[in-house]
Amino acid sequence: MRAITNPSFLIHHHHRPSVASAVLRTLRHRIPFLSPSFVKVKAQSTSTSYAELDNTRTGRSGSLASPPAHFDVTQKIDVNPPKGTRDFPPEEMRLRSWLFQNFREVSQLFGFEEVDFPVLESEALFIRKAGEEIRDQLYCFEDRGNRRVALRPELTPSLARLVIQKGKSVSLPLKWFAIGQCWRYERMTRGRRREHYQWNMDIIGVPNVAAEAELIFSIVTFFKRIGITASDVGFKVSSRKVLQEVLRRYSVPENLFGRVCVVIDKLEKIPIDDIKKELRSAELSEEAVEELLQILSVKSLTKLEEKLGSSVEALADLKQLFSLAEKYGYSEWIQFDASIVRGLAYYTGIVFEGFDREGKLRAICGGGRYDRLLSTFGGDDIPACGFGFGDAVIVELLKERGLVPDLSPQVQNIVCSLDQDLQGAASLVAARLREKGQSVDLVLENKPLKWVFKRAARINAQRLIIVGSEEWQKGMVGVKILSSGEQYEIKVDELE
Amino acid sequence: MRAITNPSFLIHHHHRPSVASAVLRTLRHRIPFLSPSFVKVKAQSTSTSYAELDNTRTGRSGSLASPPAHFDVTQKIDVNPPKGTRDFPPEEMRLRSWLFQNFREVSQLFGFEEVDFPVLESEALFIRKAGEEIRDQLYCFEDRGNRRVALRPELTPSLARLVIQKGKSVSLPLKWFAIGQCWRYERMTRGRRREHYQWNMDIIGVPNVAAEAELIFSIVTFFKRIGITASDVGFKVSSRKVLQEVLRRYSVPENLFGRVCVVIDKLEKIPIDDIKKELRSAELSEEAVEELLQILSVKSLTKLEEKLGSSVEALADLKQLFSLAEKYGYSEWIQFDASIVRGLAYYTGIVFEGFDREGKLRAICGGGRYDRLLSTFGGDDIPACGFGFGDAVIVELLKERGLVPDLSPQVQNIVCSLDQDLQGAASLVAARLREKGQSVDLVLENKPLKWVFKRAARINAQRLIIVGSEEWQKGMVGVKILSSGEQYEIKVDELE
Repeated sequence: MRAITNPSFLIHHHHRPSVASAVLRTLRHRIPFLSPSFVKVKAQSTSTSYAELDNTRTGRSGSLASPPAHFDVTQKIDVNPPKGTRDFPPEEMRLRSWLFQNFREVSQLFGFEEVDFPVLESEALFIRKAGEEIRDQLYCFEDRGNRRVALRPELTPSLARLVIQKGKSVSLPLKWFAIGQCWRYERMTRGRRREHYQWNMDIIGVPNVAAEAELIFSIVTFFKRIGITASDVGFKVSSRKVLQEVLRRYSVPENLFGRVCVVIDKLEKIPIDDIKKELRSAELSEEAVEELLQILSVKSLTKLEEKLGSSVEALADLKQLFSLAEKYGYSEWIQFDASIVRGLAYYTGIVFEGFDREGKLRAICGGGRYDRLLSTFGGDDIPACGFGFGDAVIVELLKERGLVPDLSPQVQNIVCSLDQDLQGAASLVAARLREKGQSVDLVLENKPLKWVFKRAARINAQRLIIVGSEEWQKGMVGVKILSSGEQYEIKVDELE
Repeated sequence: MRAITNPSFLIHHHHRPSVASAVLRTLRHRIPFLSPSFVKVKAQSTSTSYAELDNTRTGRSGSLASPPAHFDVTQKIDVNPPKGTRDFPPEEMRLRSWLFQNFREVSQLFGFEEVDFPVLESEALFIRKAGEEIRDQLYCFEDRGNRRVALRPELTPSLARLVIQKGKSVSLPLKWFAIGQCWRYERMTRGRRREHYQWNMDIIGVPNVAAEAELIFSIVTFFKRIGITASDVGFKVSSRKVLQEVLRRYSVPENLFGRVCVVIDKLEKIPIDDIKKELRSAELSEEAVEELLQILSVKSLTKLEEKLGSSVEALADLKQLFSLAEKYGYSEWIQFDASIVRGLAYYTGIVFEGFDREGKLRAICGGGRYDRLLSTFGGDDIPACGFGFGDAVIVELLKERGLVPDLSPQVQNIVCSLDQDLQGAASLVAARLREKGQSVDLVLENKPLKWVFKRAARINAQRLIIVGSEEWQKGMVGVKILSSGEQYEIKVDELE
C-alpha cells in the first residue's frame, strides 16, 4: 500500500540544500520513482527521435527500395526503453527476483496471502482532491473507447476496490500482500523514473495497533534478512490523531484534515513560509499554524503528553505500539517523531516511515492506518492499515552498504557434442539430466571446446558433459568437474 | 515471444461452426485474450456506469453535505476491475503463482535466464503493415507529453530492442525467458479479456533447428510436469520456407510474404472464398492460390517431398527437427502439418503450435523462427527463435482434465493470546517461531477460541499455539497439533 512519496531520486544527494533555490529544487526532489537503474550498464543514447519514429508509424518512411524480406518498416528504432522505464536484462532481473523473493518469503512467514490487481485502472479510482503529489502525477490516458484510465500510481485503491467487491464473502481479518509495478507521469530529466515496483502488506479488519506493530515487524524482519541492521535504518512513527487533536482544538473543519496532512508532509522540503501560507489558505488561524508547527517538532511521547494531555487517543495508540515493539524485540528500530504525517490523504491513525540513519536517502518505505478509505469508494468502512516499500531506495542502500548479493547465473551442467552428428545424442543426455532435476545448458551448435569452456565459465556451470563418438558407442559420456578439473567417463544412465 | 493468436476465448466452444455466420463469428473467434477467469468467483455486476464515475472525477458529485472525514469524493465506485482485466484475489493468485513457478523452473532447467521489459512501450515498436490481428488491436494511447505509446501486445519486439541495444556486449547464444502481461484493445462483450500473461522462451544466435527442438522440448517438459500427456496435447509443426518456396515458384514478391502468411493463418477461421480473395489481392495468380491451398493440406513429410522435391531447405529443416525429437524422446508429441503458419508477420522458418487433441480449445502456445526481425528495427540480423505460451488456455485445459492442483492457503502456525494483556507475549512467541523459519498467523485481537479454530481451519494451520497467563508465568505456551488433536505444553525456547 501507499506510494513512497519521498524516496531517494537524485543520483547525487544534496545534504545541505541552499535556501535560495529550495522551491525549485523541491519540485525535483519530490519525484519518487527516480533512481539509478539497478546496475550501471544502462545505455542512454537516443539516436532516433520520436519524430523519426512517427514516420515509420504513419508509413511515410518511404524506404521501400530495399525492405527486409517481409517487413515494410526499416527505420531504425529507439533501442532504449521509453523514458523513465527500465528493461531488466538478466543481471538486473536477478537482483529484482532476489528482492521480490525476499518480499514474498517475509510476507508468507507472517501468514499473508499474495494478491494482484490490474496495472491499468479506471482513473476515477485515483482521483482525490487533497493536493497529493501522487494525484498530480497520474499517468492517465483516454483509451480507444474514450474512457479515462490510468496506470496505477499505488496499489491501495485497487485493494480497497477488491475488498468492497468481495464484501461478506471473505472472513476478516484479511492479510494480503502484493508486489506490483506503479507509475507516475512526470516531465523527465536525466535519470528519473516513471515506474517502480512496490511491495505492499495490508491488514484489513483489525482496529488496534497490534496490526501496525506486526507490519513494522515484518519490515524489520525483511531488513535483517538482507543484512540491514538497526544502525543502518530506523522507523519514524507518529499518529495523525495528533494533528487531528490540534485541528479539533482550533475548530478546523474535519474535511480539511487530509489536505492539511498533505501540506505538512512537505515540511523540510519547501520553505516554511510556503507551508504557513498553504495552511492559512486551508482556514487555519495564525495561532493554530504556530501551535501545529510547535507540536510537529516534538520528538518524545513524554513531551507530547505534556502538550496534549494524557487523555488523547493518539497517545494511547503510540504507547501501545512502542510497548509491543519492545515485546517483539525491535524497540531500537523505532522512534517517535511528530513531524511524520506521510503524503497521502487517506491515513487516519498511526503513520510511519523507514529512513536511513546517514540521512542520505529519501524514505525507504512508508505506511499507516487508513480506517476510512472504503467509505470514500461507497463501501462500508473496515479498519485497515498497510505499507508500501519501493524497489529503488532499498537497492541504493544495499549498494551504499556493500550488501548487494553476488547473483551470478547458475546452471549446473553444460552439455556438448564433439561433432554435428552427435547433436541428437547430446539432446538425449540433456533430457536425462533434466529428468533428474539437473539444469542443463545444451550447446546447440558445433563449437570448439575452447568456446564451450568460455561459456561454461560465464554461466558458472559445475560440470561439463562431453558427448564424443568413441565413448558414445559404449553408451558413455565424458564428465569434467569444472571447479576441480577432475575428469572421468560414465555411463549415461548413471549420470546423477 | 509471440502472442498466442488463437487460443481459446469463448467459454462455450463451437465444435462445428455453421458456414453461414462464419465471417461474423471469426471476428469474435479471433480474440486471444478472452477466457473464463482462473476460478469462478468473479463478480460481474457493474452497478455504476462510467458516466457516473465521471461525475466523481470532475467533482460534480455535489455530495458535500456529508463527506467522510477527509475525502471529497463519495460517489460509489465501480468495484469491478476495468472491463477485460482481472483482479487476482488469493485463490486466483495461488493458481497464477503455481503456473508461473512451473514456467520458471522449466526455463531454469534448460539454462535460460529471466528478463523483463516495460509493459508500456513506444507504439512505433509494434507497428508493422502485415494486417496482423495483433497490430489491429493495439492498446495504444497518447501520453501527457503527446507521445504515442502502447501497452505491449507481445514481448518479442521488446526483446529484439534489448538485443540490439546490448549489441556486442553480450555473448551469443542468449537463452532468455520472460513472463509478462500483454494487452490488446478490443470492443468488449461478455467474458472476453484484454490482458493475459505470457511465458516466452527465446534463443538468440543459433541458426539451426536444434534450437527449435530444444524449445519444443521445454514445453513438453512443462506439460509433463503439470500432468498433461501426449494424449492430451500435441504440436503441429511446419516451416514458412514451404510457403516461401511456393511463392518463389510463382514469382510473388518477397515483401508480400509476411502478409500472405497472415492471410493463410486465417484458414478454417474465415470462409475459403475470403481467403482466396485476400490472396489474390496480394498479387497471387489463381493458379498460385490453388497450388498454395493444395500444399497447405499436406500432412506428411513424404507427401511434401513428392510435391516440392527433396532439395528444398524446408524439408531438410523439418527432417532434422523430427529426428532430434526422436532422440529427445518426444516424437509422439509432434506432427507435420503444412497448414500451420502462425499469425505474426515476422516468422521466417520453423513454426509450431500446441493444440489439444480433443479439438475443443484454441492454440495453447505457438512459436517459431524469426531470423530477420532485428533488421526491421535497424539492427543487424541474428538468427533467433522462440515461443509464447499464454495463461488462459492452459488453465482451461487443466480444468477440463481435472488437473488444477489443490492450492489451499498454508500457514504452519496460528498464535493467539487468551487475554488482551498477553498480546505482547504472543508477539514474542510469533517472533521466535518466525526466526526459526516457521510461518505464523498472529491473532491480533482478543478473540474467542472458537473463532481461532475456525480461522486455523481456513488457513490450514498445522499447529495452534496458545499463550495463556498461567503457562506464560512459567515461560511456557500451549500447543495443539490440529491434525491429530494432540495437546501439550512446551517452553517457548524449545518451540521448533
